[in-house]
Amino acid sequence: MPDTSPLVGIIMGSDSDLTVMQPAADFLRSLDIPFELTVVSAHRTPLRMVHYASDARDRGLKVIIAGAGGAAHLPGMVASLTTLPVIGVPVKSSNSIDGWDSVLSILQMPNGVPVATVALNAAKNAGILAAEILGAFDERVGAALAAYKQQMIHEVQEKVDILKEKGWINQFD
Amino acid sequence: MPDTSPLVGIIMGSDSDLTVMQPAADFLRSLDIPFELTVVSAHRTPLRMVHYASDARDRGLKVIIAGAGGAAHLPGMVASLTTLPVIGVPVKSSNSIDGWDSVLSILQMPNGVPVATVALNAAKNAGILAAEILGAFDERVGAALAAYKQQMIHEVQEKVDILKEKGWINQFD
Amino acid sequence: MPDTSPLVGIIMGSDSDLTVMQPAADFLRSLDIPFELTVVSAHRTPLRMVHYASDARDRGLKVIIAGAGGAAHLPGMVASLTTLPVIGVPVKSSNSIDGWDSVLSILQMPNGVPVATVALNAAKNAGILAAEILGAFDERVGAALAAYKQQMIHEVQEKVDILKEKGWINQFD
Amino acid sequence: MPDTSPLVGIIMGSDSDLTVMQPAADFLRSLDIPFELTVVSAHRTPLRMVHYASDARDRGLKVIIAGAGGAAHLPGMVASLTTLPVIGVPVKSSNSIDGWDSVLSILQMPNGVPVATVALNAAKNAGILAAEILGAFDERVGAALAAYKQQMIHEVQEKVDILKEKGWINQFD
Amino acid sequence: MPDTSPLVGIIMGSDSDLTVMQPAADFLRSLDIPFELTVVSAHRTPLRMVHYASDARDRGLKVIIAGAGGAAHLPGMVASLTTLPVIGVPVKSSNSIDGWDSVLSILQMPNGVPVATVALNAAKNAGILAAEILGAFDERVGAALAAYKQQMIHEVQEKVDILKEKGWINQFD
Amino acid sequence: MPDTSPLVGIIMGSDSDLTVMQPAADFLRSLDIPFELTVVSAHRTPLRMVHYASDARDRGLKVIIAGAGGAAHLPGMVASLTTLPVIGVPVKSSNSIDGWDSVLSILQMPNGVPVATVALNAAKNAGILAAEILGAFDERVGAALAAYKQQMIHEVQEKVDILKEKGWINQFD
Amino acid sequence: MPDTSPLVGIIMGSDSDLTVMQPAADFLRSLDIPFELTVVSAHRTPLRMVHYASDARDRGLKVIIAGAGGAAHLPGMVASLTTLPVIGVPVKSSNSIDGWDSVLSILQMPNGVPVATVALNAAKNAGILAAEILGAFDERVGAALAAYKQQMIHEVQEKVDILKEKGWINQFD
Amino acid sequence: MPDTSPLVGIIMGSDSDLTVMQPAADFLRSLDIPFELTVVSAHRTPLRMVHYASDARDRGLKVIIAGAGGAAHLPGMVASLTTLPVIGVPVKSSNSIDGWDSVLSILQMPNGVPVATVALNAAKNAGILAAEILGAFDERVGAALAAYKQQMIHEVQEKVDILKEKGWINQFD
Repeated sequence: MPDTSPLVGIIMGSDSDLTVMQPAADFLRSLDIPFELTVVSAHRTPLRMVHYASDARDRGLKVIIAGAGGAAHLPGMVASLTTLPVIGVPVKSSNSIDGWDSVLSILQMPNGVPVATVALNAAKNAGILAAEILGAFDERVGAALAAYKQQMIHEVQEKVDILKEKGWINQFD
Repeated sequence: MPDTSPLVGIIMGSDSDLTVMQPAADFLRSLDIPFELTVVSAHRTPLRMVHYASDARDRGLKVIIAGAGGAAHLPGMVASLTTLPVIGVPVKSSNSIDGWDSVLSILQMPNGVPVATVALNAAKNAGILAAEILGAFDERVGAALAAYKQQMIHEVQEKVDILKEKGWINQFD
Repeated sequence: MPDTSPLVGIIMGSDSDLTVMQPAADFLRSLDIPFELTVVSAHRTPLRMVHYASDARDRGLKVIIAGAGGAAHLPGMVASLTTLPVIGVPVKSSNSIDGWDSVLSILQMPNGVPVATVALNAAKNAGILAAEILGAFDERVGAALAAYKQQMIHEVQEKVDILKEKGWINQFD
Repeated sequence: MPDTSPLVGIIMGSDSDLTVMQPAADFLRSLDIPFELTVVSAHRTPLRMVHYASDARDRGLKVIIAGAGGAAHLPGMVASLTTLPVIGVPVKSSNSIDGWDSVLSILQMPNGVPVATVALNAAKNAGILAAEILGAFDERVGAALAAYKQQMIHEVQEKVDILKEKGWINQFD
Repeated sequence: MPDTSPLVGIIMGSDSDLTVMQPAADFLRSLDIPFELTVVSAHRTPLRMVHYASDARDRGLKVIIAGAGGAAHLPGMVASLTTLPVIGVPVKSSNSIDGWDSVLSILQMPNGVPVATVALNAAKNAGILAAEILGAFDERVGAALAAYKQQMIHEVQEKVDILKEKGWINQFD
Repeated sequence: MPDTSPLVGIIMGSDSDLTVMQPAADFLRSLDIPFELTVVSAHRTPLRMVHYASDARDRGLKVIIAGAGGAAHLPGMVASLTTLPVIGVPVKSSNSIDGWDSVLSILQMPNGVPVATVALNAAKNAGILAAEILGAFDERVGAALAAYKQQMIHEVQEKVDILKEKGWINQFD
Repeated sequence: MPDTSPLVGIIMGSDSDLTVMQPAADFLRSLDIPFELTVVSAHRTPLRMVHYASDARDRGLKVIIAGAGGAAHLPGMVASLTTLPVIGVPVKSSNSIDGWDSVLSILQMPNGVPVATVALNAAKNAGILAAEILGAFDERVGAALAAYKQQMIHEVQEKVDILKEKGWINQFD
Repeated sequence: MPDTSPLVGIIMGSDSDLTVMQPAADFLRSLDIPFELTVVSAHRTPLRMVHYASDARDRGLKVIIAGAGGAAHLPGMVASLTTLPVIGVPVKSSNSIDGWDSVLSILQMPNGVPVATVALNAAKNAGILAAEILGAFDERVGAALAAYKQQMIHEVQEKVDILKEKGWINQFD
């Protein structure tokens, strides 16, 4: 993927969401997938949102990751304005009712305008999902994802060994 | 209120919501409050929504009533695009999870962009609330609302009498 | 709005709710909208509540903001006693079940008696909504609200710039 | 209990709740406990509610049973206006969100003003609870309740026998 | 109430619930209502529970207050074993899912066996409710409850005055 | 398993639960596992419940399946009175709030007294689980359960074939 | 897209889910996107699931759509076994608690293994999302999705016109 | 139980769950029941999970205890791959929505594949339940469980005595 023009756009309603959303960027960077990241607020900057979403495909983006909390309208509204796949990250913001509002107002989109919703605060998974979408068509990314899965298996095996060393009986391994 | 230009705009995401939303119109009509009613979908017609909300104040509207279900973004997005008060009606649509998604995605707006939310499917209350807003500044409407309250008292008293006639002991009345 | 007689009444069930409710007052003050603020408890001072609500319109109030938590009856009972619009603020008080009781006992009013409910603890939004109601009929307030919306856009743009300065790639702006 | 002046007052927000509430009356009648029953709406007839609750003790009532649905304020408001025990019946009315609003807005009363809440739609249990309160001080009623408990045991035993007759193996009885 | 034999029995599933349950005892003591307090666990001491509940009426108790958390069976099981009114206090214990399990497993009793449920952790209200039950038949207690209500009004009025002194405008008082 | 003395006891709070609970019996019968079935109500027949649970182990039972709805205390109370494994079936009875009360009041048992809870209304799974417990120590039952798993695989394969015959493309099989 | 080898695999836990899942197939067919459809059950055919997911990428699939209800493990387990993007459709099956179990057991995947979750029963949106993923890399599909969006706008406009013809005032259009 | 080959297998999705899961091991150890404990992740090591579950019965295990959080698939998937009874412990992990996802994705298994679910984080109860299953067929374990129940009674009685010593009136004991 020599082209360094961003393939993934990461947007969030407020810079206060950056702590939650940064793992999406971190994962893409770890796989050398070019991305951009900025603030787009559905409720405070609705016209900015319209422009961002409308231009996204022409600017070369392949996937948009949008994070928002409470009555979270950013992912769904962006999805209404582009034909690109939009990944929604429900953020458990301070004004949220335990995250339920964030989840439901992103997930429960009407037929015609899907949002690919991931778990509450699961920005890392949003980054992985974006990579999987790119990786379905890009062998380098696909191979990197396969390696990432191997690494997860390896990490579990290390934990298995540590538990054995600590004296826990385990007659399976 | 001799002016017949609409003071209240009633919008909904789909004409399938008309059954739920019509009581708002009926109440306004019963008080001779001019209104308009049309379909504006946040997700299917986002630009129409931008235009409707942006023009609303200049067109003379004083209040907007917006009904939507599921991941209901219409009331909140309209509120982001106008300084008029926006009343949100959570609709228990067929794709809703018992109405929870409709309620939370309308109610839980972030600070800066309020939506005056009424109960699930409570379009009549949206009409009454719009009338109360107008009636705070219009004596004719205020008096009509006072009369409406008297009528509700009267109806309860009739029911009290009917129960007594049916033989239910009641030593209070 | 040269008249300094209060146009908005802010009431709450307990002075312990003042921390949550003060942003409503702060917003109104920032727009030079005269308001009053006091404690009215539906459950501990029901007759005080009856008098407050019954007199509100005659005393010149245009909107009432009522905050309460748990089995929150104040907003709905005040709404039953006045034809003014009543804005309800569900407070996540210490005795609340994650705020669900506060939200549902304010929001789910029966037809005939609406309460304009805002998000959990969203007293600032209650202040903004009250201003929007006044601003629909008062050009000065309407213009102030438009300026407030511009300020929110400006603040987002500042955050956009800060993120760029911090090195986040953003090819949209 | 030779006195036929009502000892229990059964009130509900609407005559449409009578179907749900009647089992409370039926149970009291089955134990020859004098009661009265009428409509008192917190939201449509707030002053009637104030008068009903304020006079209740002086009129000789010992217990009040109040049923309501949605944002159900009747039981709690009546409790704020009397020192009598108030039993609240959450009604799953048509405008309720699966009964959760009815339950929470009756149950979650702040300290100082309790409501003795029974299960959703459990008007019969409200009648039994009222009888238990009276029966704690009235031997006749206490004995009647003990007989009622015996009858429940008898009915279970009959069902046990029927199942055995139908061929279900049961080596316990 | 010269008799010092306990009229109210306060029981809880564990002594770890004492912090939550003590306000019930404190309120009864403040009104000079004799009570007893001990640990009775439905799940760890089921037979102790059977004996406690079966003997309660004969030992002179008029009301039982039972507090429990999680899958809270104590209030309902005690109610199944006595004809006395049983007040249930749902305790938000450490193993509870935000208190929902405690509330539902106490409140949702089947017809035949009511539990007078109060709000989550609302042991003080349980004490007040027990006093109201006694006070319906005891003028001294009834008068004490009326005085308690007056005291609550007085406390609100003091808070009203404090807010005025702090400079909050209030044209109602 | 030549012994025909019951190894599994199936109990329910009411014969109205038999429709829901019968699949547990049906599954055990299909595997020739001897069982008994009767009505035991925690709330209406608490002493019968005490006797049933206390005697169960001595009567030769190995597992007890208990179904109940609403504030469902039967499974947990039985578990408190025996050292046998108790399987709880939450029943979505007519008085239940969508089954949540049934689930939580069976599942959320305090430490010391577990109930093996299965899904809402999942009596068949209770029967299978009872068989798995027996089958862990009985080769005949273990083999029957393995055959049952094979049968499920076979049924899926048949459905796979039917879908192919109906013209759905499937390049996997 | 001349290649007719399936690009999308649609799988479901049971053929009883076909009614819910068919709209995904219908949408893909309407855009001439080749797909396959079969039954794969995580719980009844776990090894079949392992094989299906492990082979999917090598067989040329680009996206997998998996629908399941209740404790829905199919989408998440398939995602654990492939690097392809997996779209999960929570199905409100008969054994589901109002769909909450289906939603949460698909959505709330741990970091490392995302599932692109759509709304409850929203199989059509799963089909659209799959098309969006393909369309990000295939101009023909991208153009077809843009046309689909235009068609949605057109349908709303037709409804706007119908409401006007029916006499509803609308001064916006 | 002289055989020291493990009879119970305790597995968890991550070593970060060990704090929650250890009480299961502690209880089994206190009863001298041989067990093993290791990490098996459904999502990160799906094939390890398949092997663990498929071999479990042949390796001599009688019961498997599986703990997991969020979209918790481990208990259900293991249950699909063995005929042994599987006990599921819903873990309230950091990425869980208050534990609801953990509970529902373990509890709500479809018919055919039960999981014996215990309360949220109730690993100790999982250990007790495993012991009860073994104890139904092993007199030594059964007697140990009976002693454990006696110890719980003894501990309650000690607390009863402590409360009396602290001055709490208790006329029952």
